[in-house]
Amino acid sequence: MTALLAGKHAALRTRVLDVLQRPAFAYVSVHDREAYRARVLEWCRLLAAEGFGGIAFPREFGGEHDTEKGIVVFETLAYHDLSLLVKFGVQFGLFAGSIHRLGTRRHHERWLRAAATLELPGCFAMTETAHGSNVRDIETTATYMPDSGEFEIHTPRVQARKDYIGNAALHGRMAVVFAQLGSQGAAHGVHAFLVPLRDASGQTLPGVSIEDCGWKEGLNGVDNGRITFDRVRIPRENLLNRFGDVAAAGTYTSPVASAGRRFFTMLGTLVSGRTAIAAAALSATKSALTIAVRYTDGRLQFGPDGEAERPVLDYLLVQRALLPRLAGAYMLHFALHELVERLAHAGESDAQEIEARAAGLKTWASAHAVEAIQACREACGGQGYLEANRLSILRADVDVFTTFEGANGVLLQLVARGLLTEYREEFGELRLWDVVRWMTGRAATAITELNPIITRRTDPDHLRDPEFHLNALRWREERLLDGLARRLRRRIGDGESAFDAFSACQDHAAALANAHVERVILEGARAVIDQQTDPWLVRVLAQLSALFSLHCIERHAAWYLEKNYLEAPKSAAIREQVNVLCRELRTDALPLVDAFAIPPALLAAPVSVPVP
Amino acid sequence: MTALLAGKHAALRTRVLDVLQRPAFAYVSVHDREAYRARVLEWCRLLAAEGFGGIAFPREFGGEHDTEKGIVVFETLAYHDLSLLVKFGVQFGLFAGSIHRLGTRRHHERWLRAAATLELPGCFAMTETAHGSNVRDIETTATYMPDSGEFEIHTPRVQARKDYIGNAALHGRMAVVFAQLGSQGAAHGVHAFLVPLRDASGQTLPGVSIEDCGWKEGLNGVDNGRITFDRVRIPRENLLNRFGDVAAAGTYTSPVASAGRRFFTMLGTLVSGRTAIAAAALSATKSALTIAVRYTDGRLQFGPDGEAERPVLDYLLVQRALLPRLAGAYMLHFALHELVERLAHAGESDAQEIEARAAGLKTWASAHAVEAIQACREACGGQGYLEANRLSILRADVDVFTTFEGANGVLLQLVARGLLTEYREEFGELRLWDVVRWMTGRAATAITELNPIITRRTDPDHLRDPEFHLNALRWREERLLDGLARRLRRRIGDGESAFDAFSACQDHAAALANAHVERVILEGARAVIDQQTDPWLVRVLAQLSALFSLHCIERHAAWYLEKNYLEAPKSAAIREQVNVLCRELRTDALPLVDAFAIPPALLAAPVSVPVP
Repeated sequence: MTALLAGKHAALRTRVLDVLQRPAFAYVSVHDREAYRARVLEWCRLLAAEGFGGIAFPREFGGEHDTEKGIVVFETLAYHDLSLLVKFGVQFGLFAGSIHRLGTRRHHERWLRAAATLELPGCFAMTETAHGSNVRDIETTATYMPDSGEFEIHTPRVQARKDYIGNAALHGRMAVVFAQLGSQGAAHGVHAFLVPLRDASGQTLPGVSIEDCGWKEGLNGVDNGRITFDRVRIPRENLLNRFGDVAAAGTYTSPVASAGRRFFTMLGTLVSGRTAIAAAALSATKSALTIAVRYTDGRLQFGPDGEAERPVLDYLLVQRALLPRLAGAYMLHFALHELVERLAHAGESDAQEIEARAAGLKTWASAHAVEAIQACREACGGQGYLEANRLSILRADVDVFTTFEGANGVLLQLVARGLLTEYREEFGELRLWDVVRWMTGRAATAITELNPIITRRTDPDHLRDPEFHLNALRWREERLLDGLARRLRRRIGDGESAFDAFSACQDHAAALANAHVERVILEGARAVIDQQTDPWLVRVLAQLSALFSLHCIERHAAWYLEKNYLEAPKSAAIREQVNVLCRELRTDALPLVDAFAIPPALLAAPVSVPVP
Repeated sequence: MTALLAGKHAALRTRVLDVLQRPAFAYVSVHDREAYRARVLEWCRLLAAEGFGGIAFPREFGGEHDTEKGIVVFETLAYHDLSLLVKFGVQFGLFAGSIHRLGTRRHHERWLRAAATLELPGCFAMTETAHGSNVRDIETTATYMPDSGEFEIHTPRVQARKDYIGNAALHGRMAVVFAQLGSQGAAHGVHAFLVPLRDASGQTLPGVSIEDCGWKEGLNGVDNGRITFDRVRIPRENLLNRFGDVAAAGTYTSPVASAGRRFFTMLGTLVSGRTAIAAAALSATKSALTIAVRYTDGRLQFGPDGEAERPVLDYLLVQRALLPRLAGAYMLHFALHELVERLAHAGESDAQEIEARAAGLKTWASAHAVEAIQACREACGGQGYLEANRLSILRADVDVFTTFEGANGVLLQLVARGLLTEYREEFGELRLWDVVRWMTGRAATAITELNPIITRRTDPDHLRDPEFHLNALRWREERLLDGLARRLRRRIGDGESAFDAFSACQDHAAALANAHVERVILEGARAVIDQQTDPWLVRVLAQLSALFSLHCIERHAAWYLEKNYLEAPKSAAIREQVNVLCRELRTDALPLVDAFAIPPALLAAPVSVPVP
């Protein structure tokens, strides 16, 4: 199993883990903030020296031109301190990555190597105090001044300052700043600009003021800050001009005609960020599950009168708290790696679908991480509450994964809209109304008919059949999509604006997006599982897949019952089958977490080592 | 509403809040542990000087002999730093409270006043490393030595050290130590002993070794420690002898014949602790809801094209995350205060029922707090992640409320067993098997018949009718109790041990306990709500009550559908009615959190103040 999980980049994974196990990478206190931040910077430098920072970039700039390897490095780093992960991601993924993906040759030649080696520490300054989710409406301006051939970067009001910017409070010397481009009196929407922040000695430059965001719930090894620009001038060439440029005279040109589409195309280049976040959240989940399974496997409490006490992992409630999450971690692992592979070989035509998947998997992985780590904390009782056992730190650090790179609630709406308009390309630029009308016609015929025998079968063979699982998850997605299209159609037909109609259906849209992600996870994981031949792998992966699927169906059982997809006895039988699978997988729980192969030095929790 | 919430002890509440708003109570950093611990001790001294520490104790020892007031003080303190709350609870509730409730006149006269004024800082040493939930099997021994008339307190192995003991690492000078009493070669079960730990200068006494538990997820202002006893001698009189005593010659006597019952009677005296924990968890929830509702009411994000952005609390997903929790907080408030009143006037005959309620409400209130504060954190996005906005601190602090004073999973089993054996008294000492057989016969006839018209009604009048809500919640509890009794009967009848049978049904038992608590909350709250006459109160409390109830039913909709209590259209109508109630209550959300009347100095979060 370890080999299957490590996959084709096992050697790179081992290389990263070897570096992370060096004495220099020993964990430090999260409460001495200045020392912590300094150490995290130092860790980033050591990783950059190993070439891990620029692995995704072209060879001529010191990289291996391999996005997939970039994600492998990132997910492996997430077994270590998550402040390191995030600082690393800000510098190499967001700052250097923006230069790479939004800039052109001149930017790559001048800055990419310096960014990838951390010679030039940088920031990704998109979020503003008043605009976090709705970044299209950020207020920072970049006004072109034809007289001097410069852009003037300006913060028009306090609430428009760049906020929560990683690497800004202390270390960043330059930032990729997103701002509303204006030239010749016209507005051209959000673009990215390279803006110097500090000189080589660390002094902020004229017109730039930076304050520290202070203590956060977690990730205190990252120096987040707030940046205000007071009419800061930068050369015209500092515009990252892949998707829009301004000539010396001030003429604006862009390969993408529509301002809205241009904005989403720019954001779309950041999609590997969301995939990487999902992968990192999964690594943190694996650490927590390893700690909790090892502890609860050995921790004795209560027992029959006069007999020895029982390991708490023998108790159904503890199994129910941990083992469906373990199954979720496995399934997500396989599905994510399938996505990463597709991402590496994606053409322009797949872009929209991959973007939706990345967004969806990010929401699922981050929410799953928060829930799973919390369940691990509670299952470990007071031991879980001790910082030394790392669960509380993992949870505090990973909590913001549900918020950054797109708040989960907002991303779920995005995924649902994507599903509604997935076929928009077939029609060219349709209005939402047309798409909804078209979807309504389509969905009514596409949905699988209900089979009365299937809705009643409660035998274990059927309940464990992957075909049943796939059909149930697909049916849910299709029906929710159909239902959402119908509801929107009715509301828009009644004269509501598209905005109000969609607002009224937010819970439906979120349910659809979630159903979509769960179907995608199951399909992605099955593609790997179905190829296995080793008897233990075949058996245990079938159990994990069944537990994941039945647990999904169980959580949505009310909906399935309402739609007559399940009859009452079958719903009860599914609940019981989840219990049966928990009991069966309890035996394999230890080998299943051992297969994650997280080095003890990184795991670090005293309770993950059995009491002698 | 503020007056209704403050209740009959409004003056005491105001007195406590006035003290907490003094400059000396300004919050301090949670990251400077030594300073934090020292400040929390100082805060406790200031509160003791106001007479709040001993308010529950007899007048002759400086108190007001009022348990209810003790809980009012505690729940009000929970609007401030929760380390202060817990340190206060350890000193006055657990340490002094044990002297009061487990000791007799000689202990009260010698130690109660010193404990209540914090002249004598003390600990409550029950938990051991290997025994947290299963405290009946703790291993510390207290062996009576008739030659010297002393007990010898001893830790037989490392895993038997007292662990996680609040006030132990630094400040405690004495501990109430729970240990297995042995005398004349016989074992008499767990008893409590007063054991000196440190001299007046703070030096640990011979035979006592204490180590610091170190950093925790939260509550770092409390100095938790691990205590090991190496054959420490204490006078015979230090046995807290209300429920069992040893004569000078070594003869053991007790007013409670059975060792098992004696143990549970002793634990039962601690029941006000669980009620107080529930009330404190609720206060923390109210703080978080106040912060989140105020912020999301003013925070703008997205909007229709070309129009102003909308407050995020206008969005259904945010309403769904916050408003059912607000309804839960209100309902829990009323139900808890009803329990507190009964607790104050309880006779021996109510003891068992009140104990089950306290345990149940503690599980519900603590789980609700963790979920609600997390929802608040996420609804506030990045602002919620900043420590200055307090949500992350509240969540980290309150997290362990699900674990201490009885882990929630264990308490739910206790509540379920209590429901199964509630009528045991009618039969004397029956075995579980007999109780189950009796219950099975009883439950089959007691359950309300299903009414086919009711299962179909979907009109708002019916869906908002408190009678429907009460019936639905009662029916769920009864049916789950009946079902559990039948399942246990079948398994025990098939030859399983009671232990194994109950283990196999843990999820069922937890569901029953939860259903019981939700019914208790609704009934308790309705008793208050039904007395109101002010039109706004009547309207808004009806909405809160309906939202709480329908949200409960919605979460268990699969079960109701399986049991044919709901037909499919009704289940869908309930989901929609939850949305309708969320939209209606959105208008009142601000006044509803304002009514909690938490002083701004205690709330402290910058985002709880609107941006000018």
